[in-house]
Amino acid sequence: MTTHRSSFSPPPGDPWLTIGEHTFRSRLIVGIEQYDSVSVVRDVLTITGADVFITTVDPDNRRSSLLLSDLDNAIDLDRFVWIGTTSFSRSKDSALRTAAILRDSLGIRILKLDVRGENNVPDNRQTLEAAHELRADGWALMPFILPDVEMAMALQAAGCEALRVMASPVGSGRGIADPGPIQEIIDAASIPVIVEGGLGSAKHVALAMEMGAAATLVNTALVQAKDPMKMALSMRYAATAGRLAYESGPMPEAVAV
Amino acid sequence: MTTHRSSFSPPPGDPWLTIGEHTFRSRLIVGIEQYDSVSVVRDVLTITGADVFITTVDPDNRRSSLLLSDLDNAIDLDRFVWIGTTSFSRSKDSALRTAAILRDSLGIRILKLDVRGENNVPDNRQTLEAAHELRADGWALMPFILPDVEMAMALQAAGCEALRVMASPVGSGRGIADPGPIQEIIDAASIPVIVEGGLGSAKHVALAMEMGAAATLVNTALVQAKDPMKMALSMRYAATAGRLAYESGPMPEAVAV
Repeated sequence: MTTHRSSFSPPPGDPWLTIGEHTFRSRLIVGIEQYDSVSVVRDVLTITGADVFITTVDPDNRRSSLLLSDLDNAIDLDRFVWIGTTSFSRSKDSALRTAAILRDSLGIRILKLDVRGENNVPDNRQTLEAAHELRADGWALMPFILPDVEMAMALQAAGCEALRVMASPVGSGRGIADPGPIQEIIDAASIPVIVEGGLGSAKHVALAMEMGAAATLVNTALVQAKDPMKMALSMRYAATAGRLAYESGPMPEAVAV
Repeated sequence: MTTHRSSFSPPPGDPWLTIGEHTFRSRLIVGIEQYDSVSVVRDVLTITGADVFITTVDPDNRRSSLLLSDLDNAIDLDRFVWIGTTSFSRSKDSALRTAAILRDSLGIRILKLDVRGENNVPDNRQTLEAAHELRADGWALMPFILPDVEMAMALQAAGCEALRVMASPVGSGRGIADPGPIQEIIDAASIPVIVEGGLGSAKHVALAMEMGAAATLVNTALVQAKDPMKMALSMRYAATAGRLAYESGPMPEAVAV
């Protein structure tokens, strides 16, 4: 009984992704670029059990949401795997410039690659083009795409480390609008699939994980909850619950989405 | 940060139901009548964090799934709130006889009242009739019904302590087949609403809790999972995740079911 009691604490877990010396264990990744308070970023990262720290620059106006020097005073940033993101980019060229800045200024070599159109949804074609160029330059890539299995396979073939597949538009909170194509990608891919975009609540995260996602990424759902820290904790439980359910081999009737 | 770290352990939580000296805190209730192993019952109760122990007799053949004397050797049964169930009953009279046996043999005064038809779904009319008779006899009642708001209000008016509303047929694993009427009951009732029946996986439990259920009851989902203990742990996380999400005040787009 003692064993079972203690196992209620979230298992540390084997890494679901390893890139060089960097291991990704937490099944929940959080975006932090919407916060303007260092202490809030610290608390969100702590409560969610995050082991990834996402940073970026805006290549066009050199805007950064928070100063890293301030964050570094509040958080032991060395505990995290640092990855960069191009989430401000609206073109391949902008993404490539962002990547170069992140590499040159921070030494980052792992990229959460986003190339979104003006409607803020991924531009799959430009993302694939950017991926080819960045791979040739030695980047480890985690590209964000609309759920299209052919595109997913092309990015896998290009050597990407993981795929990030859109559940519903970023910030929409609408959850997994159409599970079919996402399930198809999870089933077809041999690299980890992260479900991201529009995950608004615990039930969305649990569903994604039960579908076999390696991890989920949340952001706006925390920012817009009346109590962001409580939602952050909820999301951590939900990611663990969903993963455990997936691993437990649920009764077949409960697997359909 | 220390505070937030420690708060990842499930909060003990205020009781969501108090009946006399008995308090219900765990948001997850587990049925145990399908197990034939004492050690499995012990582990399931422990892993799920259950604080309710459900026992029954079959009034027609005096069958009890496990001998209480054996369980008592393996589990400190005094840690639990003991409630009886009439889940074997297929008529009002059978339920009343079961209740009388549970009272006379075990001193139980809290009843998980089930009167199901031959199709194994609740017979709302007979359940209400049984509730009136049992209330007159001093029982604390938690009746199981098909989601019908008028029936829910009638049972509340009859003095029931909590309502148990069917998500989908018991054992089906199909989750919340039609959230609308269940949401209607949760919104209308002033007593706690437990969602039960067909909850097959973590995502179903999270959804029910996000709808505002006070608790969820699971049973077959654990028994039929390939790894019941892993699913039991998943369900515990899912109930907590869903409750926290509900309490956090999610963005409106994520509240719709």
